[in-house]
Amino acid sequence: MKILNNIYNPQNLKKVKKEDLGRLAKEIREEIINTTSRNGGHLASSLGVVDLTIAIHYVFYAPYDKIIWDVGHQSYAHKILTERKNKFNTLRTYNGLSGFPRIAESEYDSFGTGHSSTSISAALGFAVARDLKKEDYKVIAVIGDGSMTAGLAFEGLQNAGHLKKDMLVILNDNEMFISQKVGAIAGYFAKLLTASMARKFEEKVMQTVSRFRGFGSPFSKLIKRVKVMLFPGMLFEEMGFTYIGPVQGHDINNLADILENLKDMKGPVLLHIITKKGKGYAPAEDDPVKFHGVGKFDILTGKTAQNKEITYTSVFSDTLVKLAQTDSKIVAITAAMPEGTGLDKFAKSFKNRYFDVGIAEGHAVTFAAAMSADGMRPVCAIYSTFMQRALDNIIHDVALQNLPVIFALDRAGLVGEDGGTHHGVFDLSYLKYIPNLIIMIPSDENELQHMLKTALNSNKPCVIRYPRGAGTGATLDKTPHMLQIGKAAVLKDGDDICFLSVGNHVETCLQAADLLAEKNIRASVVNMRFLKPLDVYAITGMFAKTKKFITVEENVLIGGFGESIKSLLYNSGAVVECVGLPDKFIEHGNVKLLRKKYGLTPESITEKALKIL
Amino acid sequence: MKILNNIYNPQNLKKVKKEDLGRLAKEIREEIINTTSRNGGHLASSLGVVDLTIAIHYVFYAPYDKIIWDVGHQSYAHKILTERKNKFNTLRTYNGLSGFPRIAESEYDSFGTGHSSTSISAALGFAVARDLKKEDYKVIAVIGDGSMTAGLAFEGLQNAGHLKKDMLVILNDNEMFISQKVGAIAGYFAKLLTASMARKFEEKVMQTVSRFRGFGSPFSKLIKRVKVMLFPGMLFEEMGFTYIGPVQGHDINNLADILENLKDMKGPVLLHIITKKGKGYAPAEDDPVKFHGVGKFDILTGKTAQNKEITYTSVFSDTLVKLAQTDSKIVAITAAMPEGTGLDKFAKSFKNRYFDVGIAEGHAVTFAAAMSADGMRPVCAIYSTFMQRALDNIIHDVALQNLPVIFALDRAGLVGEDGGTHHGVFDLSYLKYIPNLIIMIPSDENELQHMLKTALNSNKPCVIRYPRGAGTGATLDKTPHMLQIGKAAVLKDGDDICFLSVGNHVETCLQAADLLAEKNIRASVVNMRFLKPLDVYAITGMFAKTKKFITVEENVLIGGFGESIKSLLYNSGAVVECVGLPDKFIEHGNVKLLRKKYGLTPESITEKALKIL
Repeated sequence: MKILNNIYNPQNLKKVKKEDLGRLAKEIREEIINTTSRNGGHLASSLGVVDLTIAIHYVFYAPYDKIIWDVGHQSYAHKILTERKNKFNTLRTYNGLSGFPRIAESEYDSFGTGHSSTSISAALGFAVARDLKKEDYKVIAVIGDGSMTAGLAFEGLQNAGHLKKDMLVILNDNEMFISQKVGAIAGYFAKLLTASMARKFEEKVMQTVSRFRGFGSPFSKLIKRVKVMLFPGMLFEEMGFTYIGPVQGHDINNLADILENLKDMKGPVLLHIITKKGKGYAPAEDDPVKFHGVGKFDILTGKTAQNKEITYTSVFSDTLVKLAQTDSKIVAITAAMPEGTGLDKFAKSFKNRYFDVGIAEGHAVTFAAAMSADGMRPVCAIYSTFMQRALDNIIHDVALQNLPVIFALDRAGLVGEDGGTHHGVFDLSYLKYIPNLIIMIPSDENELQHMLKTALNSNKPCVIRYPRGAGTGATLDKTPHMLQIGKAAVLKDGDDICFLSVGNHVETCLQAADLLAEKNIRASVVNMRFLKPLDVYAITGMFAKTKKFITVEENVLIGGFGESIKSLLYNSGAVVECVGLPDKFIEHGNVKLLRKKYGLTPESITEKALKIL
Repeated sequence: MKILNNIYNPQNLKKVKKEDLGRLAKEIREEIINTTSRNGGHLASSLGVVDLTIAIHYVFYAPYDKIIWDVGHQSYAHKILTERKNKFNTLRTYNGLSGFPRIAESEYDSFGTGHSSTSISAALGFAVARDLKKEDYKVIAVIGDGSMTAGLAFEGLQNAGHLKKDMLVILNDNEMFISQKVGAIAGYFAKLLTASMARKFEEKVMQTVSRFRGFGSPFSKLIKRVKVMLFPGMLFEEMGFTYIGPVQGHDINNLADILENLKDMKGPVLLHIITKKGKGYAPAEDDPVKFHGVGKFDILTGKTAQNKEITYTSVFSDTLVKLAQTDSKIVAITAAMPEGTGLDKFAKSFKNRYFDVGIAEGHAVTFAAAMSADGMRPVCAIYSTFMQRALDNIIHDVALQNLPVIFALDRAGLVGEDGGTHHGVFDLSYLKYIPNLIIMIPSDENELQHMLKTALNSNKPCVIRYPRGAGTGATLDKTPHMLQIGKAAVLKDGDDICFLSVGNHVETCLQAADLLAEKNIRASVVNMRFLKPLDVYAITGMFAKTKKFITVEENVLIGGFGESIKSLLYNSGAVVECVGLPDKFIEHGNVKLLRKKYGLTPESITEKALKIL
């Protein structure tokens, strides 16, 4: 019988014999592989921390003790062990378990995550609250080496080292960042590993150095300092943490012993463990990048469905490479997302003009601003939801100085299974009011290539926002050409009603127009192309034909495209109905299903049109 | 004759004899003190770097070489030495010189600043662009120890250490952060100073340690590592920088010699200098906090005009202390702005519940989120313009989890002389669309206290945004009471036209109503109080009386309050005119003057009303 069968919560886990924990880990890995093969998900990172997760729950007392999973995509084993085993097959499906920790989902999820590098700040918040309330629970943050490159993590370390609260930060070093050689911290981690090998030599040096103790007090202070320095991890020591490690992260019993020892240590402690992404599933161990976030796959072979659809990302990727061949001013910047943004291709062709700055969106934008101030044409490719982290850099460093930086916002609109933390449904609202910005929204992948060319030649700060996944299947023109900035395209002309739309919902509107045509209703469809500047001329042209408008966008309605149209047509007498997302955080689930739920389908829009008419 | 008389640009400076540079520094300080005493400004920081600025321009060749002043409020000497001496008396006045570097103002300002901690990222951008273009200019960033606490600075250091471009970062350590003991980095800097005193001992240790070289290759690697560690600054060394310092920062000749030596060094170099804020002006040396950003003052005595007006800040400050006396759950967080936000008073009364996290807005918000998740009631007091740095933390950590964090946004609206980088005119737009947020805007300082109480008892994430400076002089109720969330207040009832306003412009509207009354026009005035939730009932009530509305806000019109009203009243037949700020970055200058220019006066609003009527 499976050991997992008897485990519903961490209390049950504590009754398992130590020698059986390895078997349990295997069972949990099977569970994770099974569900992920059907539902997709973050397989590699979750497999990597199964042993750590068991050790944590074996030693600590959640939910009384607070465990914070940085990013949170590695929390599958945690979910299985904390009363959610029976629902685990619903992972990432509509109404099912979230792929990330969520306070609302379980009391074992002490703090929700999704974006990286928040865990140290959050852990410190819990530790401070605990002490003020004179409680005594433990606080544990688990953070990957990649997340450690973000400024937010540094801010958290800094403040934690200063306040000296009891808390444990577990640095889960899966050497992803070392292999990718991103940032000085990666180099530092690599050195930590080397240093640990060299420790026996260090001890010799220490013995010698100790002999100098006689030289008096300032000298003995120095000796103490030297001692700290000779051990690896003194960067963390300098920040006020006690550093322990590196420790192999797949030996559960050893991990549990260490955690048991650390549990009651005073002050902030950093435990550095080394794990392997994808551990326990050969295809994921061999290709952790592919299995980082993966769709359905065949368990035996590790093969995923061959997706031959052309995506917005791939068109962006190809076009940028093409344009960069004849324009040496083009440089590209990613914040630790070379594959996701499609910049991996650019990296191969233009090694010197490609910059992966680590998870550092703010720096990415300011860095780009300075390059453009000196004549380069930087393209910052960052997901819509992560760009929220660089708002001030966009306003203060780029827009205020009117510098020609291009922002390629991938994953704009609904992203599906990753849910509320990842939907890119705020960008039109958080960008629209920024002076000097040009905001482009391609209606298909062909337009995307033209917009990229247009942006690169505009000499202005430009945003291009486009959705996740496959395009409309539009035929790609051989060479990208310039569009007129601020000019919409009238795709269909009809006098009964006018659809104004941006992005992928131009296609939805065309389909709605076809549905209406079956009822002898003639609809216009305008692809606005630019949220800013808005094509006032095109809209007034339409106004001459019809006084009925429907706007469609995949963004929250508040502060979005529709509100701009209402503002423009206010007092004109035109009827304007806006279709978009409501004032709430959108749940996770299949994108098609979510679009249906929120009225972003041809049928639903048609219905809305019929109501007005 | 003054040496300064012969200096128009850095080329002239290079002709000054070395022994005369001290005299020149004195003249420049006089110039700065004179102008600041009349115009106000950032006196202490600018006085602190006069010697450094002279040394930099003596050695480097601006504008060919790129100098980036972090924050930029210390750039007064730089402005005087770079062709702006004759305009220096216009500093911070409308149409005069900006108080910060601006690309648009001078080619010597290679990168505009205003918000902190951008300079390393920007310097790296210039260095990369230079190498790609095969040019050979030098890049110098000057950054204070306070700015170094921000995550953005860390991201910049990280990436610079990794890319190994030739660039010089001058850490201007004025020990402000050491004295305030904020963050682990401050402690680290303090250690650097001690370590430098102990250096002679270190050298002795080094000599001994070197003898171990015979032990073979891994050991000699270790020795190299030990060597790095024995010198101060190895935190920077670990990040990939060559560290030099600490060096006294007021000996111009010595500084110039050092810069001359560093000029051609390869890779990123960090020069650590120690300066005194306010150097050369006794009142500022004695009270650098007062003279950080100061209004007009008397040069002889250092006395500033006694401002006895009650400010929004002081009411916030007093109310919070009052409420915290009976509610132990209240904690307060500032990002290095205890005096500016008024939290210094809270700090004195509730030392354990007060947190200055350094210049780390993102961390401040996530830290607060976790505290509130554990039952505390954190109040994050951050200026409107700086809160732009924490957008993702507000969305992802607070609003998405619906956690009761209170954001006190001081300096919302126009701030005056600090200009474009500091006006808080975007907050309504960057917050309005965030689900779950309650947004309150007090019309006077009395309402502010009630809103703070309301927010603290709402169990919801709340924003309170209020302007810089004096309130309206409203009588303060003895005890703060609860307001009904989402309920507006009708202050004046009239059937001809209705003013809907938020914040300090409710008063403007009342005055406009009085002006209209002189013409026998009866205007209603509604103090909306809440941007979110919007009081739909109050507005429809007004709609029953009049079909003419004017909205007034001190925020950009795009995505602001007025657009929400238009969206609400769309298709109703009501006329709505919106008064607010245009789609551009607002220049610096006196607030009254700017309000007049942008139509935010009773007279201008009255005129607008007459046009509609």
